[in-house]
Amino acid sequence: MMSTNRLEAFSDGVFAIAATLLVLELHVPPPGSGALWPQLVEQWPSYATYAVSFITIGIMWVNHHALFRIIRRVDRPILFLNLLLLLGVSITPFPTALLGQWIGDADGAHVAAALYGGLFFLTGIAFGGIWLYALAHHDLITEDLKRQQVSTAGSFRRFNIGAWVYLMGIGIAFYSALLSLLLYALVAVYYVAPTLPQLERGGDE
Amino acid sequence: MMSTNRLEAFSDGVFAIAATLLVLELHVPPPGSGALWPQLVEQWPSYATYAVSFITIGIMWVNHHALFRIIRRVDRPILFLNLLLLLGVSITPFPTALLGQWIGDADGAHVAAALYGGLFFLTGIAFGGIWLYALAHHDLITEDLKRQQVSTAGSFRRFNIGAWVYLMGIGIAFYSALLSLLLYALVAVYYVAPTLPQLERGGDE
Amino acid sequence: MMSTNRLEAFSDGVFAIAATLLVLELHVPPPGSGALWPQLVEQWPSYATYAVSFITIGIMWVNHHALFRIIRRVDRPILFLNLLLLLGVSITPFPTALLGQWIGDADGAHVAAALYGGLFFLTGIAFGGIWLYALAHHDLITEDLKRQQVSTAGSFRRFNIGAWVYLMGIGIAFYSALLSLLLYALVAVYYVAPTLPQLERGGDE
Amino acid sequence: MMSTNRLEAFSDGVFAIAATLLVLELHVPPPGSGALWPQLVEQWPSYATYAVSFITIGIMWVNHHALFRIIRRVDRPILFLNLLLLLGVSITPFPTALLGQWIGDADGAHVAAALYGGLFFLTGIAFGGIWLYALAHHDLITEDLKRQQVSTAGSFRRFNIGAWVYLMGIGIAFYSALLSLLLYALVAVYYVAPTLPQLERGGDE
Repeated sequence: MMSTNRLEAFSDGVFAIAATLLVLELHVPPPGSGALWPQLVEQWPSYATYAVSFITIGIMWVNHHALFRIIRRVDRPILFLNLLLLLGVSITPFPTALLGQWIGDADGAHVAAALYGGLFFLTGIAFGGIWLYALAHHDLITEDLKRQQVSTAGSFRRFNIGAWVYLMGIGIAFYSALLSLLLYALVAVYYVAPTLPQLERGGDE
Repeated sequence: MMSTNRLEAFSDGVFAIAATLLVLELHVPPPGSGALWPQLVEQWPSYATYAVSFITIGIMWVNHHALFRIIRRVDRPILFLNLLLLLGVSITPFPTALLGQWIGDADGAHVAAALYGGLFFLTGIAFGGIWLYALAHHDLITEDLKRQQVSTAGSFRRFNIGAWVYLMGIGIAFYSALLSLLLYALVAVYYVAPTLPQLERGGDE
Repeated sequence: MMSTNRLEAFSDGVFAIAATLLVLELHVPPPGSGALWPQLVEQWPSYATYAVSFITIGIMWVNHHALFRIIRRVDRPILFLNLLLLLGVSITPFPTALLGQWIGDADGAHVAAALYGGLFFLTGIAFGGIWLYALAHHDLITEDLKRQQVSTAGSFRRFNIGAWVYLMGIGIAFYSALLSLLLYALVAVYYVAPTLPQLERGGDE
Repeated sequence: MMSTNRLEAFSDGVFAIAATLLVLELHVPPPGSGALWPQLVEQWPSYATYAVSFITIGIMWVNHHALFRIIRRVDRPILFLNLLLLLGVSITPFPTALLGQWIGDADGAHVAAALYGGLFFLTGIAFGGIWLYALAHHDLITEDLKRQQVSTAGSFRRFNIGAWVYLMGIGIAFYSALLSLLLYALVAVYYVAPTLPQLERGGDE
């Protein structure tokens, strides 16, 4: 067992890099290809998916932070659950670009939107897995939480609701890609509010 | 509420990555396409926008650092204002490449230069928003600052003047893209001098 | 001699960036090129090599972490052995993309799979070199380890077995590229279990 | 004035990212373009420049580390000298790719090799500038160094000799690009030995 310092450093790195790499999927129209403004406007789906993905990764980072204020020590299984979570985070630029470029395609839009939601669903599952595993191994959790006897079950439901909304989004994707993108954006807004049990003593190092 | 350690680590990551990704927008002329030197010289606008963007991001990082020496604890709203700031920072390589490649286009140059300034304007607004929010919530600010009764209003004006110069640059962009780029470079030079209240005790962790 | 803090920070950076850059080798099929789904399915070797490389880098990070809990101080030779290790880690996206794209080529698949295994073999050698060097210089190793008189020889064998399996994989690559990829995936699974001597006192800062 | 913690974190980020981004300049030959092996062999100059750049950035990182063990507090001028240094580091992938691709061009090779050396020369100058500035402002330097009355002048000459060798390399580039690349590689080897004054007490935080 070890403390969470270096796990957080590595995770912060992957979150920050994945979020910043998203910009590479925005393409500069080649000069001489006509007026610039209409070509930029035409790319709006890429900006929309960029924004949703950036905010989603940012929120995940905030929640990851909150999660590892409660989980104070990590063992090997947590390390590997966290690796799976980071695998999902780091692959985000691919479905983001896919949806941004294919959203205008009659057929491909559904596939791209479902894959996009599918990735976030899997990431949500990995998040939930870490939380469930930690709840089942009390020695990993900070003393403050145990003393306060927080209703962790209720908190788990709220924490993990996103995964199920993403699952719903996959279904909606086959009806309308745009509507599912809107739903994914709403999940990000939902998570702006804190969903994990709040420690009374705001103890942070 | 929590301390600012991990927010700073994540932000440092985004600043460093966005600044370093700028290099990917410098293109190697394909060998066999003629003499190398004139082709490299022709790309001068890309080097100019590269330098302005890199220095601007670097200065933002320095100021971000200074800001979070004063703001010692963060709550959820600060976290999300900071996410918006980082969204602006991380998207920088896109308008940078846009302006570098379109500055020679009679029409597109104005659009590209205005967008470039527009991004920095929004980033400045996000910076100002964090500062205003923190001033309005005294428990987030370090004790040293309160004790010294610094004129934070004056400092806020100096701190945030950049945003208004960027706004002016957007207007100038429609007259001359090159002139607006020069103005953006001057803003970076302006911020080399410290604009936030200086703590007498150079207390750092 | 110095403590390992900044070496770990720099290494964490390279591990995190190399793992996250892998995504840039996944290509979005251009819209209008036909149905999306079959084109995505066709790219399965790229997803497979992506996953194997990501998990392998992740595991290396975990083991690097474990290694530098035992090695508590570093000197110049360790710094440069570590640089060689990071050179291997950072180049990973190249053979990953190579194998992902050439695995369907009758001839190129063998070359690509052998190079892929060759890179991991060299990385394993660098890992072993750091460990051997540290064992030979007792002042670099944490006191806890010395006190427990752990059988470091046995642990070295288990720690470094991966390098030899990679060597075997290079041979197998000339018989079947797919089989060697499977073997590389198995090495990652093997390293999920801890291979370095466990300190009884889980002392971490 | 502030301590060097966050400056080191940001710098470590830029060093690590620039070193890891180099891999994006290694190109995968498109499958179906003939036998893989000869195409890979043909790219040897790209591997050579990759290795020289990676090791050079790595060594710079080690020396940056050593420098900021001596410089314990930083003020605004140091921050901005450091930004210029990082500007040089972060642009490295561009001349690296340039030299790797143009080294076979009768004319372009000289230009590319001179630019490559020129970048490292400027980086060396920035390094020297930080060191000179710190020597002239004794309050920035750690107490240990002052007490030991180390011959900092001699150490400065050894520390900064690289810059002048790079300058020599620029001249040689116009005679033979390959020879200058070899010289740049030798500089990296030279810096493997420590060149800054060694503190007797290996005091690190």
